Amino acid sequence: MQRYLLEIEYDGTQYFGWQKQPDKPTIQGEIEKALNTIFRSDVNIVAAGRTDTGVHALQQFAHFDLNDGQTFEASQLLHSLRGLIPHDINVKSVVPVSSEFHARFDAISRSYIYKISNKYSVFDTYSWFIRENLDVKIMNEAALLLIGVNDFSSFCKKNKDVNHYRCEVMESELKEYADGKMEYFIKANRFLHHMVRSIVGNLVDVGRGKMHLSEFEKKIHEPDRENGGYTAPAQGLFLAKIDYGI
Amino acid sequence: MQRYLLEIEYDGTQYFGWQKQPDKPTIQGEIEKALNTIFRSDVNIVAAGRTDTGVHALQQFAHFDLNDGQTFEASQLLHSLRGLIPHDINVKSVVPVSSEFHARFDAISRSYIYKISNKYSVFDTYSWFIRENLDVKIMNEAALLLIGVNDFSSFCKKNKDVNHYRCEVMESELKEYADGKMEYFIKANRFLHHMVRSIVGNLVDVGRGKMHLSEFEKKIHEPDRENGGYTAPAQGLFLAKIDYGI
Repeated sequence: MQRYLLEIEYDGTQYFGWQKQPDKPTIQGEIEKALNTIFRSDVNIVAAGRTDTGVHALQQFAHFDLNDGQTFEASQLLHSLRGLIPHDINVKSVVPVSSEFHARFDAISRSYIYKISNKYSVFDTYSWFIRENLDVKIMNEAALLLIGVNDFSSFCKKNKDVNHYRCEVMESELKEYADGKMEYFIKANRFLHHMVRSIVGNLVDVGRGKMHLSEFEKKIHEPDRENGGYTAPAQGLFLAKIDYGI
Repeated sequence: MQRYLLEIEYDGTQYFGWQKQPDKPTIQGEIEKALNTIFRSDVNIVAAGRTDTGVHALQQFAHFDLNDGQTFEASQLLHSLRGLIPHDINVKSVVPVSSEFHARFDAISRSYIYKISNKYSVFDTYSWFIRENLDVKIMNEAALLLIGVNDFSSFCKKNKDVNHYRCEVMESELKEYADGKMEYFIKANRFLHHMVRSIVGNLVDVGRGKMHLSEFEKKIHEPDRENGGYTAPAQGLFLAKIDYGI
């Protein structure tokens, strides 16, 4: 048995997220379909992290295993995969890895970027456009409060399969660029369902004056599982980096 | 009679260029349709420069006239127009101007940007992707040769309605960014049909070693109207700036 690791980027606009679903286009579904065509057998791939409907990835990793009889050159597989998958998914590399390596469990952190635009442009199709003026300074004060180990119950979708809601956030910053463009960057050991979009929804409410900073802070220190609802739209969210500590 | 000036940006992907055509979506057609709805009369708009099918504009200007009876507030018209035009066209401003002002004839220069990508990414939908390594240094040597007053017969589509092919190029530079992204910037007093796309097509041939720099230079100094054919694709081209000297 040989394990291979794929590095992937994708525009998630046309897909129902990462995870395979019957009769719906998904990223996992498209890549497995291509692998199955190449190897004429069922190949299953395991991603570093699942992404939701409409969410993009600048960097995603996924592994899969081949039996000993199915040897091939990584460069040749890369070429074949590129020819078979749709243009909004790009396989950046294929490398053979140890069978001990696991794309999901070995990831020590993940980073996401969320794009916000405070000035409408027809070219910002990957941003959440906010008409009201945003106070970036106070948004960054709020963003900084998330750093450390906290219970993120107030910033996620409820899920009874989750044991606990603690996440360690290493970086959390809103960067401002020219022409009203902003990017919120967050790096953490793990992410709960809808966590980044919920954080961004709340940060934007702080920025446009609909939520006081103290109210945002209370959501961190008095976590409330009934209060995780408000989420920013999917099109602004990018899985940006997976760190394996190597 | 009152003349108004519109500042516009658009994603040209879905349009058959600027100029109105029967039964085909065009930028001029969409904006005039919205103005006609607002004023219940035929309003004609005149652009600073026409763009071809699939070409975008970061900045475009166009003027139109209203009769004395059709007064309105510019801010109100802006709001109405934004509600009526499709999302891939954005009216950035509306200002009343002197009836002496002409969006096309008063423009003293126009600038275009052409986006090239030397590294494939699913998010670079507005770039021309070139697989071969490009030698940016030699491309810039070629780009610099275009500065000054030259006959651009070798870099345009033939057109018997054109009196002469001389253009004054003030700026011509290829800028290199991270991740294989490049932007060719050109500013000139006038542009011939397909001129930027022809220049970029030839620059890329120089960059990938298919054309010697001396051959590129010869096209400038020995203009050949039979030789203007090779053009870069439309999706990378942006009308970027109109300068009225004010």
